[in-house]
Order: sequence, then structure tokens, then C-alpha cells
Amino acid sequence: MFKRLCVIGTGLIGGSIARAARAQGLCQSVVAYGREKNLPNLQHAKALGVIDAFYTDITAALDGVDLVMIATPVGTMQNIFELLKPHWNPHTIYSDAGSTKGSVVAAAQAVFGQVPGNFVPAHPIAGAERSGVEASVPDLFQNRRLIITPLADTDADAVAKLTTFWQRIGSSVSVMSVEHHDTVLAATSHLPHILAFALVGLLGRKDEQREIFKYAAGGFKDFSRIASSDPTMWLDICLANKNEIIPLIQQLKDELSNIEQLLVNDQAEKLFDTFTYARNARQRFLDTLDD
Amino acid sequence: MFKRLCVIGTGLIGGSIARAARAQGLCQSVVAYGREKNLPNLQHAKALGVIDAFYTDITAALDGVDLVMIATPVGTMQNIFELLKPHWNPHTIYSDAGSTKGSVVAAAQAVFGQVPGNFVPAHPIAGAERSGVEASVPDLFQNRRLIITPLADTDADAVAKLTTFWQRIGSSVSVMSVEHHDTVLAATSHLPHILAFALVGLLGRKDEQREIFKYAAGGFKDFSRIASSDPTMWLDICLANKNEIIPLIQQLKDELSNIEQLLVNDQAEKLFDTFTYARNARQRFLDTLDD
Repeated sequence: MFKRLCVIGTGLIGGSIARAARAQGLCQSVVAYGREKNLPNLQHAKALGVIDAFYTDITAALDGVDLVMIATPVGTMQNIFELLKPHWNPHTIYSDAGSTKGSVVAAAQAVFGQVPGNFVPAHPIAGAERSGVEASVPDLFQNRRLIITPLADTDADAVAKLTTFWQRIGSSVSVMSVEHHDTVLAATSHLPHILAFALVGLLGRKDEQREIFKYAAGGFKDFSRIASSDPTMWLDICLANKNEIIPLIQQLKDELSNIEQLLVNDQAEKLFDTFTYARNARQRFLDTLDD
Repeated sequence: MFKRLCVIGTGLIGGSIARAARAQGLCQSVVAYGREKNLPNLQHAKALGVIDAFYTDITAALDGVDLVMIATPVGTMQNIFELLKPHWNPHTIYSDAGSTKGSVVAAAQAVFGQVPGNFVPAHPIAGAERSGVEASVPDLFQNRRLIITPLADTDADAVAKLTTFWQRIGSSVSVMSVEHHDTVLAATSHLPHILAFALVGLLGRKDEQREIFKYAAGGFKDFSRIASSDPTMWLDICLANKNEIIPLIQQLKDELSNIEQLLVNDQAEKLFDTFTYARNARQRFLDTLDD
């Protein structure tokens, strides 16, 4: 399907894309670009068989490449576009795996003036509490959703080819606008991560933390898992999508204040209704999954 | 070990205690007490083989019983103690499975003046998003923790016998004070449940809820699971332990406000430190589990 894939950012996501593309025979070879300071990681990726070769020189890295996958934290995107600009090839497809799409498109606009038609913004909804290339697996995207957020000028053939690429990796591909993506993901992913960081941080500062952790039941274990996510990646996501996230944090605080007041005033019936509403909403969520 | 176990409250927890006690040969027979309106549930429990017999008459239910397990929502405890008081037998061991211990002890004090020495307050830290006797399983307490919170006058032999009972069911038994239990569980269980109810309720009211649920990744799925918990049970828990829970809600709102302000002001470094602190706290949590 592709001759040579170049991965920029060889962590959990970039490494898993490389492994998956290779496992499904979607490219003949996989190379990686990285900076000097990333050499140990690149060497590790090669030793693990995730990539065939790596380069710290961008010209060499892009030689013969017809698919470029950018899988770095979203805060680095503008630098990556600057790096790619002098070598931009109209016959190559460029895409990314960033968790926010508005900031990525803005970075491309800042560098190129207009977002190139052969850059396809995309977001695989997959992750894990582990990070780094050593955590990468070829089936990370199996039965996961991938969202493509094309712009008006995005090349339809590039979108079609990238759709096939992700489908063959096992993902279910959806298309939506950049803005809608960022609204939905703020609620479904960014807010829960902030909540997990807030809760685990709060409990981690308590004197009883050792016991709190010791007696934690399944609920807290589930809840706290995403607090182990990569802080660098999440710093970038939160700053990039802060305009969507900040109102949600405020709404959640209001929701908590509401429950707090019901508790203070012993308003059992309203509290019961609040819990029941949430339980029913969660059931709708489960029903959605079955679709 | 016991001749006859009487379970009061034949739901997930009561049903699982009955099944486990039978599976491990800890009693010769299991009966249940319930009110008229619970007859369908009691019939169902008998049909499932969870109990040998059931009674809506308390005198009949307690005949020949040497272990009584109260597994009803904590808000009902005072009524249960009133029911048991005229038949209180000094040679029987009484215990409960309530998620709050201060309120249970207070209910016993209100009914008996002084908490009887043969009542052993206990709390198995096990649960599931499902509820009801049909969700009960004999291994619900396997590799789980059980906390006993004896008072100064609690009979040491009763504590020892109940400890053995739970250990043979597969639980790891700890002993702590009533107050300490309620402080630790507020943080590790009650607050996360309130948070899950708040988050899922908030998202469930959004216009985009269908899509929010559709594109939810593992994080949200984990997070939302406990929002499916039984509203009646959680209403009781939250009201019973509100003095511990309310300050925690306030602290969590402060924590969220702090993150919100860091986002508003683009304070990347402090935000990174906040996320990193949480990640490290979660690692300490995982290390605790390995102990």
C-alpha cells in the first residue's frame, strides 16, 4: 500500500503504528526520524524490530517515503511542520495522531499559511497507561475508533487512502469536523483525565495515603488508572484544548457543589434522583457500545 | 463452623456471602429473612439455590441460627436492630457488611443503649456494578480485603470466629477503628463514586451525549463503571458518612480549581508538576498492591 513509512515520534502510538503497518503488510519498510537527544530511544526501537532504520537528519529520513506519520505530543506540532516544510512533497501523504485537532490545524496554518491538501489530521482513540516504544504493540488499534477531521481543501484521495490504512490496522474510521472532534473529546477523554490527575493527586497528599491505596476497591483502581498517563502528552493536550476543557471543569465543579449541598441538607430524594440519572446515563452508554 | 446462617438482605452481598459460606462448608444451612414485599426476591434466591429457606417472620427466621449476617443498605440498620432486639441471643454471632461503620454503630447504640458484645461490625471491600441476588457469586470475596471494626466491648471470641469465617471465604482480614475506617473509605471509595455519578450525570445531559459515549476510550469506560452502582445503597452510604465526604468534595473542587487556573494562565510547568505528582502517587498505589 505504501513503499516507506516514516514515523516522527517513536513512543507508544508511533511505535504501535509502525508495528501494525508492518504486521499488516501496509508498507515495505519503516523508518523513524528523531533528534540527537532521542538516539537511545531510536536505537531501542530498532533493536525491538519496530523500525528498520532511524535518522537524525530529516532529508535522509524522508528519502523514498510516501507516508509520514507524526506521533509526537501536540505541543511540538508547529516545530515538526517547520522541520518538514522545506522538504514537503506533494506526492507524499502526511498525517498525525494528535489527541486535539484544532491546535494541530492551527500549527499547520501558522507554518504553511494554508493547510496543505495532503496533510490529513487524524486521531486514533487508543491509549494505555504505559508509554514509550517498549509498550508499543501491533494490535493497539484493533477494534478502536479512529477519527479523521478533514478540512475543505484536504485531498479526498489522501483521506481515502488513510482510511483504508487505518481500517486494515483494525480501526473503525469516522469523519467529523475539527471543532466537533475537540468538543466531544474534551468531554469523553480530556475531562476524565484531569479528574483522575486531580483525585489521585489529592489522595496522594493525604497522611493516610498508604492505607487509602491499600483498601482501594475496584472503583478507585479503575478510576486512577488514567492518572498514570504520560504527563508531557497530557500537558500539551490540556493546553491545546483549554477553551473546551475549562468550561467542562466549571460544570463539573457545579455538579459536585450540587451533590455537596444535597448532602449538607440531607435531601435524600434529590440525591437518589441524581445517582439514578447517572446510572441510567451509564446504561445508555453501554447500549451505545452494543450498537 | 456454624450450624445455621441467617442472611438479612439477599442482594449481591448477602447472596454472595450465602453462596460462599455454603461453597466452603462453613455452615450446614442458610436461611434468609425478608419482608413481604421482598417475597419475589427471596423466592428467586431459593430457586437459584442461594438459600435453603426464607421467612417473613423473624422468629421463624432466627430459629436455630448461630450466625446472623445483615447485608442491607446502611440506612436500614436501625430498623433491623429494632427487629432483632426482642430475639437477641447471647450465643449467636451477629455481623454486618455495611460500607460505613460509624452509622451502623450509632444505629446499634440507639437501639441497644450499648452495642452488644456479640455484634461484630465488618465491611467486605468488594462490589460490582451489578446488583441483586442474580449477580451474586461464591467468589466475590476471594482475594478481597475485609475490615473488622471492633469496639472496646466487642467479644474477642466472636471477632476471632468471624475472622476465620471471612478468611475461609478468601478474604484478607484487617482490624481498625470505626472512625479510621470511615475516613479511609470516604477517600478511597465514597468520593470516587460521587465523582463518577457527577461526571456521568454531567455528560449524560449534553446534546452530544450519544457521540461522547461512542468515542469514549478506555479511560472513560473505567471511570464510568462505578456510576452503575446501586443508587439506594449509595444514597445511604453518602448520607451515613457525609461528615467525612463533604470536606473531600470541597478539597476536590479546590484541586479542580487549581488545574483550571493553571490552564487559564497557561502555567505549563506547574501543570506538568501536578500531572507528574499524580502519576507518581498512582505508582505508589501500584507498589502498595504488590506488597
